Amino acid sequence: MTRDEIDTPAVVIDTARVEANLARAQAYADAHGLTLRPHIKTHKLPMWAKRQLELGAVGITCQKLGEAEVMADSGITDIFIPYNILGAAKLERLAALHDRITVAVAADSDVTVAGYAARFTDPAHPLPVVVECDTGAARCGVATTDELVALAHAIEAAPGLTFEGIMTYPPRGRMAEVNAMLGEAKAALVAAGLPPRRISNGGSPDLYHAAEVTNATEHRPGTYIYSDRMQAAFGLGTLDDCALTVLTTVVSHPTPGRIVLDAGSKALAADTSPAPGHGDIVEYPGAVITGLSEEHAVVDVSACDRIPAIGEKVRVIPNHVCVVSNLFDVVHLVSGDEVTVVPVAARGLLA
Amino acid sequence: MTRDEIDTPAVVIDTARVEANLARAQAYADAHGLTLRPHIKTHKLPMWAKRQLELGAVGITCQKLGEAEVMADSGITDIFIPYNILGAAKLERLAALHDRITVAVAADSDVTVAGYAARFTDPAHPLPVVVECDTGAARCGVATTDELVALAHAIEAAPGLTFEGIMTYPPRGRMAEVNAMLGEAKAALVAAGLPPRRISNGGSPDLYHAAEVTNATEHRPGTYIYSDRMQAAFGLGTLDDCALTVLTTVVSHPTPGRIVLDAGSKALAADTSPAPGHGDIVEYPGAVITGLSEEHAVVDVSACDRIPAIGEKVRVIPNHVCVVSNLFDVVHLVSGDEVTVVPVAARGLLA
Repeated sequence: MTRDEIDTPAVVIDTARVEANLARAQAYADAHGLTLRPHIKTHKLPMWAKRQLELGAVGITCQKLGEAEVMADSGITDIFIPYNILGAAKLERLAALHDRITVAVAADSDVTVAGYAARFTDPAHPLPVVVECDTGAARCGVATTDELVALAHAIEAAPGLTFEGIMTYPPRGRMAEVNAMLGEAKAALVAAGLPPRRISNGGSPDLYHAAEVTNATEHRPGTYIYSDRMQAAFGLGTLDDCALTVLTTVVSHPTPGRIVLDAGSKALAADTSPAPGHGDIVEYPGAVITGLSEEHAVVDVSACDRIPAIGEKVRVIPNHVCVVSNLFDVVHLVSGDEVTVVPVAARGLLA
Repeated sequence: MTRDEIDTPAVVIDTARVEANLARAQAYADAHGLTLRPHIKTHKLPMWAKRQLELGAVGITCQKLGEAEVMADSGITDIFIPYNILGAAKLERLAALHDRITVAVAADSDVTVAGYAARFTDPAHPLPVVVECDTGAARCGVATTDELVALAHAIEAAPGLTFEGIMTYPPRGRMAEVNAMLGEAKAALVAAGLPPRRISNGGSPDLYHAAEVTNATEHRPGTYIYSDRMQAAFGLGTLDDCALTVLTTVVSHPTPGRIVLDAGSKALAADTSPAPGHGDIVEYPGAVITGLSEEHAVVDVSACDRIPAIGEKVRVIPNHVCVVSNLFDVVHLVSGDEVTVVPVAARGLLA
């Protein structure tokens, strides 16, 4: 298959940009003595996870068990699942994973810890559990060091569990604050006789400030591999660093200022970005995607010097690339004239 | 499998509500002499398409070729694709479909018509082409009756095409205006000696006003089968008519007023609704889903009398149900205590 033969809509990935994004992040990590544990949510591809490890990552992060199972099947042996795993069905799957690879999980409640403690009972092969701490993002995570220490004690008290450390999904742009909170958490744990082996921080927007969070022992960036319109708006490189685009065809040009593309919310997702509109058309910088329905993108081209013809293919940089990876069964890797079709092995794995 | 054994997140469909929604729509259509051609984008399941036909629908609507191929494979023989089909690869697939079932397509430009005319050349088996007209929704569609008549002539002049009629995707709540525009279009075509055989209108929000568009010969509702939070806000029934919910588990309760569910934008999509928040939690009416990340829904439960426990399963009515159908490989049909797992055969078919 050549590039011109790719039918639309389709995901097209510029492998040179992927390599540049990965190399830049690893070089930053190496320069600052930072350990990377990339989050595979963005690409959902074993081949990129392996490449991240090859370049120096210490392991990978998967948000859901199903993703971790696919990655383990591909030969990856160190996976962190920063999620509360609840319920008998999922605990069985976690046990199977724990039997074959190094896996750590998170908890932010005694309910979650009790579930782990009931299922994992072998002191010779304990399950590593990390306590999630809220450092301002107001999603999951214990809110106080008292709760943290109590949970760490509960984990350590369970014969089949081991207290691994702490993790956070930080708010954007607040490195000093996050670092101070992690420092307090660490001090409280040390004082309680439970020094954390791992202090895990995350996020791509602040990846190039991650070293400022000196208390962290590892960082879990996800989106940096492809980047997207949202990350560029947040200051992670520029639109020229975006490696993934959605190739679409102009299907209609009903009025002088309006064209319509064959990629709607089923291809681009409805996620918003600080930048206006639903994506950036690479070849037509003045165009604004003003609306999405499921199979159509409505584009205002009234500010464009030239307008694409009906039937012409254009590339769209999506607002949020991770959800786009989840919408396509395959992606097209493009390197020069070479096109390789790769199934998105960990797509749609919600549980 | 019993209902309690369904792991989360999962799509759960109340088949009694589906039957009620389908029966109500068909009864309205029958009472008003209206022909239904349901849009399968909402369910993407051959079994529901067949049920819609069984109840009286004249055929079905698919937005993309891939969806039409799946439906044709299941034995459905009359499909309308209200879309400009462009490019050699898609025209080949359209030709294969045209060889085995009754299929009609849309066009709103001479480029699209020229593509059809070049590929379809058999006067003994012409391809029916409908011209899309913009009646105010400002997506696709010719803007004037002059353009319409010119395109209809071009279609009729091509030996392998036949002018089938017109279609529109109407703006919401403007039935009188839409009807007047379709009336003008029809009159212009009759005057030009090209009377339309089909005048196709669409949309679920105004389904129960569809008969007011007296110039239409058929209506293409989609979302009415399941309904969702957006449709209920637009006045199509109430939340009690919503047949599809996303079953999720409470995974965290970090502060008194905040819980977190294991369904984020990968399960619920980021589509917005006139109602605040990202979905309605059936069992906890005062709860508001204030934020979604890919795998988490953050819920404000501060207005709730009681709060679900960590580990408890709750059902979420999504803002936009069609995109949710596209995010899951399987759905769970629930009828009393019986649970049937059905693959979403036409999921993810973007081209």
